[in-house]
Amino acid sequence: MIESYFKGLTAQDGVLLGIGDDAAILNLLPDLNNQLVVATDTLVEHIHFPSHADSYQIAQRALCVNLSDMAAMGANPRWFTLSLSLPRKLATNPWLKGFSAGLAEVADEFKCSLVGGDTTSGALSISITMLGEVPSGSAITRGGANDGDFIYVSGALGDGAAALSVIQGNKNNKSIESERLLKRFYRPEPKIEFGIKLRDVASACIDISDGLVADLEHVCRSSGVSAYVSTRDVPINDDVKTLCEAGSLEWALFGGDDYQLCFTVPEHLCELVDGWSADGLLDLKQIGRMTSCKDGVPQVFLDGSIVIQENRGFDHFG
Amino acid sequence: MIESYFKGLTAQDGVLLGIGDDAAILNLLPDLNNQLVVATDTLVEHIHFPSHADSYQIAQRALCVNLSDMAAMGANPRWFTLSLSLPRKLATNPWLKGFSAGLAEVADEFKCSLVGGDTTSGALSISITMLGEVPSGSAITRGGANDGDFIYVSGALGDGAAALSVIQGNKNNKSIESERLLKRFYRPEPKIEFGIKLRDVASACIDISDGLVADLEHVCRSSGVSAYVSTRDVPINDDVKTLCEAGSLEWALFGGDDYQLCFTVPEHLCELVDGWSADGLLDLKQIGRMTSCKDGVPQVFLDGSIVIQENRGFDHFG
Repeated sequence: MIESYFKGLTAQDGVLLGIGDDAAILNLLPDLNNQLVVATDTLVEHIHFPSHADSYQIAQRALCVNLSDMAAMGANPRWFTLSLSLPRKLATNPWLKGFSAGLAEVADEFKCSLVGGDTTSGALSISITMLGEVPSGSAITRGGANDGDFIYVSGALGDGAAALSVIQGNKNNKSIESERLLKRFYRPEPKIEFGIKLRDVASACIDISDGLVADLEHVCRSSGVSAYVSTRDVPINDDVKTLCEAGSLEWALFGGDDYQLCFTVPEHLCELVDGWSADGLLDLKQIGRMTSCKDGVPQVFLDGSIVIQENRGFDHFG
Repeated sequence: MIESYFKGLTAQDGVLLGIGDDAAILNLLPDLNNQLVVATDTLVEHIHFPSHADSYQIAQRALCVNLSDMAAMGANPRWFTLSLSLPRKLATNPWLKGFSAGLAEVADEFKCSLVGGDTTSGALSISITMLGEVPSGSAITRGGANDGDFIYVSGALGDGAAALSVIQGNKNNKSIESERLLKRFYRPEPKIEFGIKLRDVASACIDISDGLVADLEHVCRSSGVSAYVSTRDVPINDDVKTLCEAGSLEWALFGGDDYQLCFTVPEHLCELVDGWSADGLLDLKQIGRMTSCKDGVPQVFLDGSIVIQENRGFDHFG
């Protein structure tokens, strides 16, 4: 099944042998002392997408979410494997054609290729393992933030949670805004070029999948520092505010599925980064600063107050 | 969950950053112009193991099956990612401890490490993506067999099917033989060292997962040649014959789950390969020869007769 529907996805560089043998054979980029970057993510019906989503959308979301991990590392995506578990009723030509078309479109845009796969019969679930490359030593981890580094985010936040509210039938939804939001949900934009630009500039980076506060807490814990965020500096799109004025900040702080980057920059490099923004090269905003942690406990402070985690970002469908 | 139960599995060489960030960072072996070898395999309850199997056994089988793909390529296994889907009732300390212990034991023996993982709630299914290395150009594919090459297998065949019959309650089973067979089923021995030795010697290689005939057909199709197998030369263990004298040859030819290697060797290298066997270095046996295919259709012949495929190797549990 993998061979018949997905063979066209293996055409990128570096694939000496793609699908159809016991394993694929891959060439890393030549003449570079590169490191391999590997991430894996599984999407399950009802948890990561609603059951009415079509196969084209599901495939795009699955691949984009995995590409976003590469962006957060500053890595260049190259190859991926797919493990697809599928109920018998979906193992049809239209479903599989839609799925492979969605996958192919994203793979083509980001120049990565499918190099291995397995399909089994079962509840709908999509597991992707993504392989990328970085020049040795230049990957951006969660653990490099220092006291005094400034905190930035790419784009605007809250889109993911707002889209979720539209999908789940928020009464206030407006159709025009919804279209953009649904696209953001099913086709998040992996910030690959953005991440590559942050190599040797950002001290730490993470992609916002669980929500700004939750993901910033990961950075705090890995780096051993605390974070102060000025909530009025958190960028939120107008349509998200329109959708729910009262709830938009909460969406931006605690909602998941934004797949923007949150990163920290040492003070002496902020002028460079702000310049990228001023020149219209990158859409980014400074939202706070890292600080040494009191009592040795790394924490996120919003406008100076400790966050009581409300366990956001775990909204389930269905 | 991945972090708490599986952190101990990331300790091998080449892992600059293991579990706990957006992605792992890996160093390929230095000073070698190596290629990356990638394979992925999913195991599902009822299909690939019975529902009464314990978590320690399931984990070992899942990792061994994936390692076997590396063996078939002549590759050196290095790293793997795990996607574990688990029903809520199994997300317990004993189940997870057993699973991680089984995984750790095999990972340790084959010096490969877990570098990424994801757990989701759902029907029990284990997806592993395995990464390995080969010196550039030395991977053994299915597609290199030529007219006149001799066909070999490692070890003995039929163990997998015999074990299946024991697990499914074959009336004739003897307890002493069963113990060895069950071990072979849950803990197949990936032929890693064997595969490495076959680099630059075997013209094609595959691991026997679907059954000798089915897998040899893959080699035939990929290489564009036919295969003649002499069935009396196919090695079968005595306990398999004892279990079912009448059915043992069928098990050896059509049964799956043996995870032995089937490989082809050019005539001028057969003396070398036979020498390994005579010296007791490797357990292998010549079972036939490749030949040009009549009418352009690559086929497997058993004692000169065309095989009518009976779709063996798809026995399901439960």
